[in-house]
Amino acid sequence: MDRGAPAGAAAGTRGFVSDNCSGIHPEVLAAIAGANAGHQPSYGDDEVTQRLQKIFRRHFGGTALGYPVLTGTGANVVALRAMTGRWGAVLCSADAHINTDEGGAPEQLAGLKLDAVPAPGGKLRPEQIAAFAEAAGDVHGAQPEVVSLTQPTEWGVVYSVDELARLCAAAHERGLLVHMDGARLCNAAAALDLRLRAITTDVGVDVVSFGGTKIGLMLGEAVVILNPAAVPGAEFARKSTTQLASKMRFISAQFEALLGDDLWWRIASHGNRMARLMEAGLRSAAGVEILHEVDANAVFAAMPPAVVDRLRGRFPLQISGPAVGLVRLMMSFDTTEQDVEDFVRAVYQEAAPG
Amino acid sequence: MDRGAPAGAAAGTRGFVSDNCSGIHPEVLAAIAGANAGHQPSYGDDEVTQRLQKIFRRHFGGTALGYPVLTGTGANVVALRAMTGRWGAVLCSADAHINTDEGGAPEQLAGLKLDAVPAPGGKLRPEQIAAFAEAAGDVHGAQPEVVSLTQPTEWGVVYSVDELARLCAAAHERGLLVHMDGARLCNAAAALDLRLRAITTDVGVDVVSFGGTKIGLMLGEAVVILNPAAVPGAEFARKSTTQLASKMRFISAQFEALLGDDLWWRIASHGNRMARLMEAGLRSAAGVEILHEVDANAVFAAMPPAVVDRLRGRFPLQISGPAVGLVRLMMSFDTTEQDVEDFVRAVYQEAAPG
Amino acid sequence: MDRGAPAGAAAGTRGFVSDNCSGIHPEVLAAIAGANAGHQPSYGDDEVTQRLQKIFRRHFGGTALGYPVLTGTGANVVALRAMTGRWGAVLCSADAHINTDEGGAPEQLAGLKLDAVPAPGGKLRPEQIAAFAEAAGDVHGAQPEVVSLTQPTEWGVVYSVDELARLCAAAHERGLLVHMDGARLCNAAAALDLRLRAITTDVGVDVVSFGGTKIGLMLGEAVVILNPAAVPGAEFARKSTTQLASKMRFISAQFEALLGDDLWWRIASHGNRMARLMEAGLRSAAGVEILHEVDANAVFAAMPPAVVDRLRGRFPLQISGPAVGLVRLMMSFDTTEQDVEDFVRAVYQEAAPG
Amino acid sequence: MDRGAPAGAAAGTRGFVSDNCSGIHPEVLAAIAGANAGHQPSYGDDEVTQRLQKIFRRHFGGTALGYPVLTGTGANVVALRAMTGRWGAVLCSADAHINTDEGGAPEQLAGLKLDAVPAPGGKLRPEQIAAFAEAAGDVHGAQPEVVSLTQPTEWGVVYSVDELARLCAAAHERGLLVHMDGARLCNAAAALDLRLRAITTDVGVDVVSFGGTKIGLMLGEAVVILNPAAVPGAEFARKSTTQLASKMRFISAQFEALLGDDLWWRIASHGNRMARLMEAGLRSAAGVEILHEVDANAVFAAMPPAVVDRLRGRFPLQISGPAVGLVRLMMSFDTTEQDVEDFVRAVYQEAAPG
Repeated sequence: MDRGAPAGAAAGTRGFVSDNCSGIHPEVLAAIAGANAGHQPSYGDDEVTQRLQKIFRRHFGGTALGYPVLTGTGANVVALRAMTGRWGAVLCSADAHINTDEGGAPEQLAGLKLDAVPAPGGKLRPEQIAAFAEAAGDVHGAQPEVVSLTQPTEWGVVYSVDELARLCAAAHERGLLVHMDGARLCNAAAALDLRLRAITTDVGVDVVSFGGTKIGLMLGEAVVILNPAAVPGAEFARKSTTQLASKMRFISAQFEALLGDDLWWRIASHGNRMARLMEAGLRSAAGVEILHEVDANAVFAAMPPAVVDRLRGRFPLQISGPAVGLVRLMMSFDTTEQDVEDFVRAVYQEAAPG
Repeated sequence: MDRGAPAGAAAGTRGFVSDNCSGIHPEVLAAIAGANAGHQPSYGDDEVTQRLQKIFRRHFGGTALGYPVLTGTGANVVALRAMTGRWGAVLCSADAHINTDEGGAPEQLAGLKLDAVPAPGGKLRPEQIAAFAEAAGDVHGAQPEVVSLTQPTEWGVVYSVDELARLCAAAHERGLLVHMDGARLCNAAAALDLRLRAITTDVGVDVVSFGGTKIGLMLGEAVVILNPAAVPGAEFARKSTTQLASKMRFISAQFEALLGDDLWWRIASHGNRMARLMEAGLRSAAGVEILHEVDANAVFAAMPPAVVDRLRGRFPLQISGPAVGLVRLMMSFDTTEQDVEDFVRAVYQEAAPG
Repeated sequence: MDRGAPAGAAAGTRGFVSDNCSGIHPEVLAAIAGANAGHQPSYGDDEVTQRLQKIFRRHFGGTALGYPVLTGTGANVVALRAMTGRWGAVLCSADAHINTDEGGAPEQLAGLKLDAVPAPGGKLRPEQIAAFAEAAGDVHGAQPEVVSLTQPTEWGVVYSVDELARLCAAAHERGLLVHMDGARLCNAAAALDLRLRAITTDVGVDVVSFGGTKIGLMLGEAVVILNPAAVPGAEFARKSTTQLASKMRFISAQFEALLGDDLWWRIASHGNRMARLMEAGLRSAAGVEILHEVDANAVFAAMPPAVVDRLRGRFPLQISGPAVGLVRLMMSFDTTEQDVEDFVRAVYQEAAPG
Repeated sequence: MDRGAPAGAAAGTRGFVSDNCSGIHPEVLAAIAGANAGHQPSYGDDEVTQRLQKIFRRHFGGTALGYPVLTGTGANVVALRAMTGRWGAVLCSADAHINTDEGGAPEQLAGLKLDAVPAPGGKLRPEQIAAFAEAAGDVHGAQPEVVSLTQPTEWGVVYSVDELARLCAAAHERGLLVHMDGARLCNAAAALDLRLRAITTDVGVDVVSFGGTKIGLMLGEAVVILNPAAVPGAEFARKSTTQLASKMRFISAQFEALLGDDLWWRIASHGNRMARLMEAGLRSAAGVEILHEVDANAVFAAMPPAVVDRLRGRFPLQISGPAVGLVRLMMSFDTTEQDVEDFVRAVYQEAAPG
C-alpha cells in the first residue's frame, strides 16, 4: 500500500503518506559523500562492505551474513528465492506486502505459490502454520517451505518475542523456514526496547529482509541470512534477481551510518513516538476510529469519507479507496511534533459537526 | 566481465579495472544532495522524475519514455521482459553482457532463450539476424523476437550509424525488435560525435538500456522506450523485476545532472580520450598487442602472462584468466593523464626484456 | 482433490473415488486401435488431427481452434500461458483446481498470481470480477487479465447460461478474458441439455480447457481457443509447456470417438443420472448430508467420521481429511445402477444407529 | 529436428521421416487393452505402475526410481527441474534436442542457461566439461550444475562405455550431475550389445530421460532417477511440469510390454540393422555422402539438392533446409528390408547422371 501519490498539497510538504516520501537522513547523506574517495573494487569487494559485515554480525549474531540490496521487493524476492526450491509455497498474511504490493514478483521471479491467509492486524498464528504444513508431500499442491512474517506488520502491529518464538517453533517443527519482512524492523525493535537480534536470530528467524530506505537511507535494504547452513546461495540469488549493485560501497556506507552507531534507534524511536502522539491526538476526534494497536510508526485511522476528502485538500494522504475513508499515517525521521499537531488540528476542524 | 576485484595494489588507488570502481562524479553527488529537501511522492511521482522525462525526450526524441532503474542487469531484464512474450528468443553476441555476466537472469526471470552467436569485436551482422529469424513460426524452437546489440560492444568497439541502421532494418523487416545494451552509450555517442538519438531512435532502435553508473552516477540506469507503441508495459516490467525505487527522486536527480547539461558528453569524451592515450602508449610496448578498435573508453591488451603477473603487484587489474594475459583497461571519469602515463611506464618497465 | 488413492477395497473394484479411476471407454479404445495403421506425420500434421479440427468447430463454432494436449494441468497451464502476459493475475475460486491441485504449476510455469476468492459451491460472482479488475494499472500489483471459471465447479455445481453470460460480460467490460476449466464440461452440457457451444462460445468464453480423460479417454484434454483474435500463440504455449504429443493421432482419435458422434453425450448423461440416483439414495440416510446442488456427476456427502471409516473398509473413498467426513462420490462412464445401490445400502448399514 | 511433416507421398506410407511417424507396436497396443479392466487408483498408485518399478530396477539397478511421463520434452524438463537449482546452467551439445527442439522449455519452465557447445557428431568431450565447470562460484554467471548427454546423439552416434565413464567422471569430479537424454536409449544399448544399466547407472549417469514413444509406444517416456540421493523431488517436478498422467496405468502398461520381456531389444536391434542396411545401400550412390557413424537407427545422408527434390515427390522426407540436401533417415519398428531397398533404389534412380 506504500503508493505515496498524494492528492492535493504542495510537493515538498511533509505529510504522512509514507516513510519513503521523506528524503535522506543527513547523517546518511554524509556517509555517502564520505565513501566517495578514489576507486574501490565493485560488487561488494570494497572496504566499506567488508566492514559492514562485522556490523551485521554485531546486530544479528555471529553467523549472520548481510547482503545489501536495493529495493524492498528486491530484498524479499532475493530472500525467498534463496530459501525455496522450485515447487515451494510460502505462508503469509493476506495483507502481506509480498502478496499485495510487489507486482506479482514472488510468483513471476520465483514461481512461488503464496498461501495468503486472513490475519487480523497482519499477525499470523501458529495454527495457520500447522494447517499450511499439512500439504507437505502431496504432489498435487505446491510444497510448504517458508513462513513469511512482517515485523511490524503492514498494519503497524508488532509481534512480541513470545509470539515470534512460538511461530518460529511451529515452523521449524514442521521443517519450514521463517522469513521476516522487516522493511521497518528497527521500529519494531525500538517499540519492544530490544536489540535487533532479540526479535530475529534469538527467536529463530532464518532470514530477514532488513529495511533501510524507510528509515532514512537514500535506497538500500539488506537480506540478512541468520541461518546460513539452511539457506545457502544468497549471493547467487542477489545477482540473478538484478539486485547486485556495482558501486556497492555507497549502499554499504548508508548502512554503516545507520547501524554503526545508534542512528537506527534514534530514528525508530522518534517515529514510534510521533505515532503515539498522533494516536493520542486523534483518538477523541469525532467520527475517527483508530484501527489496530499503534505499536510502531504507523497509525491507521478510519474517518468519514467527507472528512477525508476535505483533508486531502490540505495534506498528501494515503487512503485505501475513496469510499472507505481508511487513512494510513506514517511517521518519518523528519516528522515533527508540530507536523502531528497541525494534522490533528486539521482533523478536528474538518471532523467537527458543521 | 566487470568483476572489478583487483589483486594487489592498495584499495582506493585509481586503476583501470572497471568504470564502476570509480565513485560518484562531484556534480552528481551535488545533485543527490540538492534533491534532498522535504517530502516527495515516491515511486516516480516526484518532481525530479517528472522533469527528467523532458530531458529523456530531448535526448531520445519526442516519443521516448524513460524508466529509471537501479542496475545494469536490472535495466536489461526490464527491457527484455517488456519486449518479449513467453516463448521469446533473443539474438546476441556470444560475448554480450546479457549472455555472460548477468547470472542467468534473462533465462531465470524472463525465460528467454539467448541465441548467442560468435561476433568478432562483439558486433553482430545482418546475416546473423536473417538466420536467427528463420526459426519464426516453428513451434519446436523458441520464437525470435528481439535482437540485442551492445553499443559500444563489450570489446569497446562502436557500431557506426550505417551499421546500426542496417541491423535495425534487418530486424524490423523480419518483425523483430531491437534492444540496445547501452551501459556505456554516452561513450559511443562521443566517439561518433553524435547526439544520443542519432545512434538510437534515428537508426531504429526500439529500446535502450541506458547506462548511468559507469559514467559517474552512484547508481542508476534507465530503460528508455523509444517505440512505445511496440513495447507497452515497461512500468509493470520495472516493478515486477524489483527495479522500482521508492525514493526515485534520487535516481532521477543523478540523471538530471548527467543529461540536463553536457556532463555526459564531458565524461564520455574524457574517457574516450584517455583510452586513445593508453592505446597510443601501449601500442609499441614489447610483447603487447592491442585487440580490437579502441573506439570508446576501453582498451584490451594482450601481454605475456609474466608481465601481467608483475603488473598485478602494482595495479588492480581485470584479466580474463591467469594463463591468457588479456588485460582490460577501462577509463573512468576521474582517470587522469598521469594515471595513464604511470601505467604505460610500468608496462614498459615490466615488459622490457630482462 | 482428484487424488484417487483408495484405502481399503480390492484394486480393480469400481468405486466412486474419481472418474479418472475408470479405464478407457471401449469405443475410445477401438478408435486408438483404428488409428494404428501405417505412418503418419507427427506433432499434429496427421489426418486424424486434421479431421478433428472440423469436429471442434462443429461443437464450439466456426472460429474454434482445438489443441489436443495430455493432462488437465497441462491444458490449464497451456491455456493460461497463452492468455496472459508476464505480469498477469487470474481470478478464480479458492477451491479451483488451478489453485489447489496443480502442484503450483500456474505460478511456476506461468508466473501467475492467482487471486483465489471464496466462492460457495465454487461459483464466482460478477462483483468479484469487478473487485478483481480494480487493480488494473497499479504497478504494485499483478495485472488482472483472466477470469477462470470451472464448469461444472469442483463441487459439481453447474453454472447456468445466464450466470455464465453475466460473468463473461463482467469480465469483457473490464478488458479481461474468460478461461473455462471444463475438465468435465460434457457433464455440464448434458446437465443443462445444451450443446457445448451454448455454454462456452455463445456466452462469451474465450478459451476452454476441454476434458477428455475423465469422460472415458485413456488420456487427452484439449485447449480450445474460441476467440483466436484475442488469444494467439496457443501452438507455442502447447509445445513449450511440454504438452505436444508426437504421435498425436492417437490423442485425436480418442476425441474423434468422443465428439464425432454422441458418445460424449451418452457418457455425460449417464454419469449425471447416476449422481442423481446416488443423491436420491443418500438423502434420507441417517446423519448424511448432501452438500451443494448435484448438477453433474459428483455427489458430496458429509457423514459421521465413524461411518466413513467403516465404509472405507468396503469401498475406495475420496475423503477430504480423516476428521471431516466429507466424501466425494464421482460417477464414471462404467458406473452401474447396481454400483450405486450397493453403496447406498452400505451407507444405510453403516449409518444405522447400533 | 523431429518435425515429421512429410512433403509429397501419401499419408500412411511408411517412410523414414521419424520413428515417431510410426504407430503403436502391436504388443504395446495389446498391453494397453489388457490394462483396461475395472477401476484403478490414479496418478500412479495403480498395480501396473507398482509392478513397473521392479522392472525399472531390473534394468537400471536397485536404486533406480522410474517416473513415467508423457513427452520427450516433458521428460527432459522434469529431469532438469529436479536436477538443478534456481541459478543452474546445463552443458550440452549445440545440436542437443534440449537446445534446439523443445520450444525453449528448459529456459521458460526451469530458467536454465544452456551452455550449448559445438560437438561433432553430437558428442561432448571431457575438456568441455572442465571448461564449463570453471564458472562455478562466480555470481556473474549461471552456476554449472548438470552435463546433459544424448545417447545416441541427435546425429545417431553412440557413446562408448569408456567415453561415458570418462565424461561422468569429469562431471562428478567437479560436483556436476549427469543427465542422459535417452530418447532412443534402447538403440544405443542394442548397438553396443549391452544392458541398459551398463550404459547408464554403471558408468555414473545420474538421471535418464528414457524414451518410449520412438520405440513403439503410443506415448510414454520415463524419467529414471539412478541417483536418488542426489536428485530428490522428481515426483514434484513431474506434477508441476504438467507431466503426471491420471490414468497412469496405461502409460505403465506400455512400458511393461516394452521392458518386461525383450521387446525393447528386438525393436532396437531391428532398427539398428535397418539403418546399417540403408547405409550400406546408399554408401556407393553417386553424389551421396553418409555423415557420421551409423551406430543406431539413424542415417544422415547429404545429397545433391536436385536429388532430394525428386525424392521428396516419392517419399516423405525430413530435410534440414531446402538448400542443404541433408536427409535424415530414421528406422522404425515396422521398417522393412523392402522399405529400405525401395528407397535405396529410388536414390540410385534419382541420383544417376541423366
